[in-house]
Amino acid sequence: MNVKVFKIPQAGPDDVSGLAAFVQAGKLNPAAIVAILGKTEGNGCVNDFTRGFAVQSLKTYLAQHIGASAAQRIIYVMSGGTEGVISPHLTVFTREDAAPDAARDWGLVLGVHHTRDFAPAEVGTLAMVHEVAAGTTAAIAQAGLTPEHVHFVQVKCPLVTASRRAQATESAVLSDSYKSMAYSRGASALGVAIAVGELSPDAVTADSICQNDDLYSAVASASAGVELLNCEILVLGNAPHAASGFVIGHSVMQHALDVDAVQAAIAHTQQPLERIINVFAKAEADPRGTILNRRHTMLDDSDISHTRMARAVVGAVVASVVGDPMVYVSGGSEHQGPPGGGAIAVISRTR
Amino acid sequence: MNVKVFKIPQAGPDDVSGLAAFVQAGKLNPAAIVAILGKTEGNGCVNDFTRGFAVQSLKTYLAQHIGASAAQRIIYVMSGGTEGVISPHLTVFTREDAAPDAARDWGLVLGVHHTRDFAPAEVGTLAMVHEVAAGTTAAIAQAGLTPEHVHFVQVKCPLVTASRRAQATESAVLSDSYKSMAYSRGASALGVAIAVGELSPDAVTADSICQNDDLYSAVASASAGVELLNCEILVLGNAPHAASGFVIGHSVMQHALDVDAVQAAIAHTQQPLERIINVFAKAEADPRGTILNRRHTMLDDSDISHTRMARAVVGAVVASVVGDPMVYVSGGSEHQGPPGGGAIAVISRTR
Amino acid sequence: MNVKVFKIPQAGPDDVSGLAAFVQAGKLNPAAIVAILGKTEGNGCVNDFTRGFAVQSLKTYLAQHIGASAAQRIIYVMSGGTEGVISPHLTVFTREDAAPDAARDWGLVLGVHHTRDFAPAEVGTLAMVHEVAAGTTAAIAQAGLTPEHVHFVQVKCPLVTASRRAQATESAVLSDSYKSMAYSRGASALGVAIAVGELSPDAVTADSICQNDDLYSAVASASAGVELLNCEILVLGNAPHAASGFVIGHSVMQHALDVDAVQAAIAHTQQPLERIINVFAKAEADPRGTILNRRHTMLDDSDISHTRMARAVVGAVVASVVGDPMVYVSGGSEHQGPPGGGAIAVISRTR
Amino acid sequence: MNVKVFKIPQAGPDDVSGLAAFVQAGKLNPAAIVAILGKTEGNGCVNDFTRGFAVQSLKTYLAQHIGASAAQRIIYVMSGGTEGVISPHLTVFTREDAAPDAARDWGLVLGVHHTRDFAPAEVGTLAMVHEVAAGTTAAIAQAGLTPEHVHFVQVKCPLVTASRRAQATESAVLSDSYKSMAYSRGASALGVAIAVGELSPDAVTADSICQNDDLYSAVASASAGVELLNCEILVLGNAPHAASGFVIGHSVMQHALDVDAVQAAIAHTQQPLERIINVFAKAEADPRGTILNRRHTMLDDSDISHTRMARAVVGAVVASVVGDPMVYVSGGSEHQGPPGGGAIAVISRTR
Repeated sequence: MNVKVFKIPQAGPDDVSGLAAFVQAGKLNPAAIVAILGKTEGNGCVNDFTRGFAVQSLKTYLAQHIGASAAQRIIYVMSGGTEGVISPHLTVFTREDAAPDAARDWGLVLGVHHTRDFAPAEVGTLAMVHEVAAGTTAAIAQAGLTPEHVHFVQVKCPLVTASRRAQATESAVLSDSYKSMAYSRGASALGVAIAVGELSPDAVTADSICQNDDLYSAVASASAGVELLNCEILVLGNAPHAASGFVIGHSVMQHALDVDAVQAAIAHTQQPLERIINVFAKAEADPRGTILNRRHTMLDDSDISHTRMARAVVGAVVASVVGDPMVYVSGGSEHQGPPGGGAIAVISRTR
Repeated sequence: MNVKVFKIPQAGPDDVSGLAAFVQAGKLNPAAIVAILGKTEGNGCVNDFTRGFAVQSLKTYLAQHIGASAAQRIIYVMSGGTEGVISPHLTVFTREDAAPDAARDWGLVLGVHHTRDFAPAEVGTLAMVHEVAAGTTAAIAQAGLTPEHVHFVQVKCPLVTASRRAQATESAVLSDSYKSMAYSRGASALGVAIAVGELSPDAVTADSICQNDDLYSAVASASAGVELLNCEILVLGNAPHAASGFVIGHSVMQHALDVDAVQAAIAHTQQPLERIINVFAKAEADPRGTILNRRHTMLDDSDISHTRMARAVVGAVVASVVGDPMVYVSGGSEHQGPPGGGAIAVISRTR
Repeated sequence: MNVKVFKIPQAGPDDVSGLAAFVQAGKLNPAAIVAILGKTEGNGCVNDFTRGFAVQSLKTYLAQHIGASAAQRIIYVMSGGTEGVISPHLTVFTREDAAPDAARDWGLVLGVHHTRDFAPAEVGTLAMVHEVAAGTTAAIAQAGLTPEHVHFVQVKCPLVTASRRAQATESAVLSDSYKSMAYSRGASALGVAIAVGELSPDAVTADSICQNDDLYSAVASASAGVELLNCEILVLGNAPHAASGFVIGHSVMQHALDVDAVQAAIAHTQQPLERIINVFAKAEADPRGTILNRRHTMLDDSDISHTRMARAVVGAVVASVVGDPMVYVSGGSEHQGPPGGGAIAVISRTR
Repeated sequence: MNVKVFKIPQAGPDDVSGLAAFVQAGKLNPAAIVAILGKTEGNGCVNDFTRGFAVQSLKTYLAQHIGASAAQRIIYVMSGGTEGVISPHLTVFTREDAAPDAARDWGLVLGVHHTRDFAPAEVGTLAMVHEVAAGTTAAIAQAGLTPEHVHFVQVKCPLVTASRRAQATESAVLSDSYKSMAYSRGASALGVAIAVGELSPDAVTADSICQNDDLYSAVASASAGVELLNCEILVLGNAPHAASGFVIGHSVMQHALDVDAVQAAIAHTQQPLERIINVFAKAEADPRGTILNRRHTMLDDSDISHTRMARAVVGAVVASVVGDPMVYVSGGSEHQGPPGGGAIAVISRTR
C-alpha cells in the first residue's frame, strides 16, 4: 500500500483549482482518493454552509474525473472554522496498491470503514460506541496495522436533526440537535478508544458518555455532520516497510497552550520540522473556566462562540511551533483528549 | 525612585477586590499609584463599555482612599478585549521617592507627561506627532532615563467623536470616529519614535501618518479613548542603581506568530521565566491578508472584528511562551511595529 | 397615591444627565423613586456589563441626593439589548402620597414587594412560584388594586451562578447558569399568574415549569439578575379616582408580528397615540422555528443570539405602530405570553 | 409577453426541491426563466458564502434541464441576510411570448440588459452611471415600457477585489473592496434614476456619487457581486393589456419604520393584501444615528453589522404589514431611496 498526503490551499470553499492543478500535473491520481479533510472558513457551528459548499464543489469536480459514484464513496470531512491564523485548505489522502518497500523504515498506512446507519435513538449511545469500536477494528485490520501503531482516527458521525427527531422514538440523548452532535462525537471517540485498547469495553457505560471526562482517546478526532446516517472511519498509523513516503506521530495536549505536546507529536515522527505536511489537533475552551489557573472569558462570551475562540488559540499555538498557519484544528473534543485539551497528530514526509 | 508593578486579576470590570486586598495588606500604597493598565473583557471596539465601567469602579474606590482629585490624576489605560485565553487583569504602577540603590543593578524607572489638549483638527496630524515627541522627551527626563534605555511608552490619546467633529473645523483626517482613532494612535506612535531617536523628525511627514508603514516605533503602544482631549504618556525604562526590584526589556514581533521575538524580549530582561510580571504586546491582523505566506481570513470576516482575532492569536502565542495567559495584548498597532507585527515588552522581578 | 412615570433618553449606560435635568428642574423628586426600568445597549446575554454599569451610575448619582441606603432600596431593572431601532432609555416610576382625586377617572397605581432570599435549590422551583405569588398578592394590596385591574407585573429574580451552585445542594434545575435564568423567570411568571388569577395554584406543578407553555401570564415580565438573591416585584394597574395623570393597558402578542395586539394594548388605555409614555413588551424567537408558517433562521444562527434578533423584530414592530423607537422590549419570555409571543403593556398620560 | 412570478421557500442555500416541484408539476417552464432573486441565510457581508452556494446549486439543477449555457444566461441576484423573521426563499421570474390580452387591465412586463464589462477604474464612476442608464433604457424598451411605468429596477453590479485592483490602474474610488461595493451600487442606482427620468444626466456629477444623498432613485435596487464584471439589469413595470396575471407597484420608505410607505406600495398595485406575491425593499441603518429623533445604536455596534440589524428591522416592519415574513429585504441602499429609507416595490396577483 502506498499512501500519499497532499495539503492544498483553498481561496474559498468552492475553490478546486489547487486540487485540479495536482491532478492535471499527474501528481495526484483522483481515482485513488480515499478521504479529504478540509478546513473551511465558516463559523464551524450550526449555520456553517461552507462545509456543504466545499463538499458540493469537490464532488462536482471529482465526478467529472472518476464518476459520480466513485466521488460519492470518498470520505469528506469538512471542519468549519479558520479563526485567527488558520488558513483554509484541503488534506487529500490517496491509497494505491504497492509492494512493501523493504528499503524503507516505518511509513504511513490507512484503513477505512463505513458502519451501518444508526436510528435516531441510537446516536450518541452505547450502541454507537460498540459499532464504532467494531468498525475501527475493521479499519485497523484493513490498514494492516496493530492497535499500538494507530496514531489518528477520524470519525465522521451523524447528528439528529429536528425533522429526524420528529420521525423517531424519543430518547433522552436527543433533546436538541446541538447536543446530539456532542453525544455523537463523544460516543464515536469512546468507540475508537475501545478499538485501540485505550479503554476496556466495560469501562464505558451508558451514563459515562459526555459525562465522565476521565475517559478519552488520545488518537480520536470526531466530527458530526448532517449529511450522513452512519459513521465513516479513517484510521491512520505507521507500518514497517510501508511503501509510503509519509509517517505519522501523535501526542495529547493537556491544555490549549501545551507547546510541549506539539513538540512531542513532532518528535514522534522522527522527522525534522520542515518535513511536516500537516498537524491535526482538537480544541475546546476549558470547561472549568480557567487555563493554567487563570480565568478565561470564552464560556461567558455571548457574542462569539467559545468553539471559535478555542480554535483561534490552538491554531495560533500550533502554527507558532511549526511555522505554518495552514493546520487542521477542529473543535468539539468530547472524549478526544482531556478536558480543555485534545489529541494532536502530525504527518511528515520521510524524505 | 522606587517603582513597583502589581498584576491583579479581575473577576469583572467592576472588581476592585484584588486591588483592595493589596491596599489593605499594606503592600500597595494607593497614593503612589501613577498608572493603571487594564485588560477588560469587552470587544475592544466602539461599543465596549467595560473600559469605562472599570475606570469608574477604580476611581470610585481610589477616591475613598486618596481623594477624588488624586484619583483623577492617575493615568488609566483600559484596553478592551480578552479574546481566547487572555485573562482580565490590572497592572498597577506605583512610584515612590527612594534613594538610588548602589547595591543593585539596573532597575525599572518611569516618567509621565500630560500634553495640552488637541483641537479636533489636530488629532492624528503632525501637530500631534510633535507634541507627543516633546511630551515623551519630558517624561524620559522625568524618569531620569536616556532614550536608548526606554523600553515601553504607553500613550493614551484622544479621538474625534461625531459631536466634537460637528463643532470643529473639518479636516481630511477626521472623516469618521473609527479612523480618527487610528490616526491618533499612529501620530502618537510616531511622536514616540522621534523622542527615542528611532526616527528623525524630518522623516515623519504629514502624508506618512497611517500611510507609510516603514516608519514605526519598537517601544510605542498607543490607545485611543473618548474620555480625554490630550495625550497622557507613560515612559518605562531601566536605569542603573534604581531602587526598583523590577526590570523591563523589549523586542519587536515581526508577525503574529513570532515566538523568537517573545523569547528575545524575555532574554532582554536577563531574568528567568518565572520572574515575569507581565508582557505588553500589540496585535493586528496582517493587512496583507497573509501570515507566513498563508492566506488568513481575519480581514474578510464580517462576523468577528479582525482586531478581536488578532488579540486572540497574539495572546495565545505569548501565553504559550510565558506559561501564563494573564498578559496585556492590545490591538490597533499603527506605527507600533511592522505591518502585522508589533512591539512587545516584558517586565520581570529582579529577585 | 400619585404615581408619575418619566421616560428619559440615555446617551450611554453611565449617562445620568437626563435624570439630573429632571431633578434639577424640580420635576422629579428623587426621594419618591420606587423603580427604574432601563434598556441598555449591551447584548442582553451573559457578558452584558452595560446593565451593571447603568445601575452603578444611577446609584452613585442618587446616593448623592437621597443617601446610599435609599438609593439601594429602589428596584433597578436593567434590560440589556437595544437591537435595531430600540433607543436606550430609563423609565422612572415615582410614588408620592396624595389624596384620591374624585374629579378623575381611572389612573395608574403601583405596589412593590421584596420576597425573602432563595436558596440555590429553590430558584426556578415551585417554592419560588408560591413565594412570588404571595409577594405579588401583597404588592397588589399595597397598590390598592384588585387582581383584575393589574396590567403589568415586573419581577426581578435571582439566578444561580457557578460559585453559588458550588456552595449549594445540587438540584436538577440548576445545571447551568443560563438555564437557571430561564427557570427563575418562568417560576416568577407563574407566580404572577397565580396571584392575578390567570392560573389556579393547582394548575402549576413542578414539572410544568419551563415545560408546559400552555401556562402563562398575560401581565408578567420577569428579568433575572446576578445581583440579588430574592425577588423584587413591581405591580402596575389602574384604580378609580387615582391621583395619577397616567393610565396603563395591556394585551398579549400571539407572535412577534402581532400588530393587532399592540393596537389592542393602546386601545385598552383609552388614550390617543400621542399620549403614550412607553410600551413594555416581551420578545422571543418562536421556539417552533416558524412564524406565520414561514421558517425563520434565528434559532440556527450561531453568530447572533436569537434573543437579540427577537428584540430587534418586536422593537421594530412596536415602534412602527407607536411611531417611537424608544420602547422597552425585553427577551426571555418563559410563561410570559404564548410561545413566540409575549405580554405587552402601554402606559399613557391621561391629559 | 407573459411574465410569471413564483415565490419558493428554501430549506437551505442548496435547496432546489421547491423549484424542482414546480418544474415537475409543469407549472414553471425552466427554459423561460429570466431572473432569480433570492434571500439566503448568510450575513450578507463579505464572507457570505450562502449566495455562491445557492447560485451553484441552482445552476447545477437548471443545467440538467435547459443546458449549461442557458442556465448561465439567467440573472441570479442572491441577497444574503435573513435576519429576524425574514424567511429564505427564491423569487423566480419567467417570460414567455404571448399575445397581448385585451381583456385584461395593466399587467407585469419585464426587460433585461447586460452591459459591457467595466475596468476596475470605472467601477463606481460616472462611466458606470452612464452605461447603466443606457442599459436600463434598453431594458425598458425591451419590456415595452415607458419610464413612468417602471416600478422596480434590479441591478447586479461588479465590485473591485484586491486581486483585480492589483492588476489595474489605481483610482481613488477603489481603495478597498467594501467601498467599491458601495460605489458600484451607488453609481448603478444613479444610472437607473437617469434612465427613468428621476434625475437629469447633468444633475449627477462625479463627486456626487455616494456623497450627495439628495440624489436617489425610488425604483432602483442594486446588489454588488464578485462573480461578474458587467452590470445585469432587470426592469419591472406595468403595461396595458399585458398577458401577465401579475402587477407591480412601488413607493419609498422615508425611514425604517415607514408603515405608510408599505401601505402605499400595496395600494399602488390596486390589489388586496392576500394577493401579494412578494415585497422588495431596501434597508439601511440611518446614517445620522437617529430614527424619528431617537438615537439608535446600530452604527456603534462592533459585534453585529448595522446592515444585518437594518434588514431585521425593515423585514419585521414589512412582514407585520403584509402578514408574511417571506419578503425580500436587502441592504446597501446608496442612492436607492433617501438616507435611512429605501425603495419598496410590491408584486401581486391580479386574480
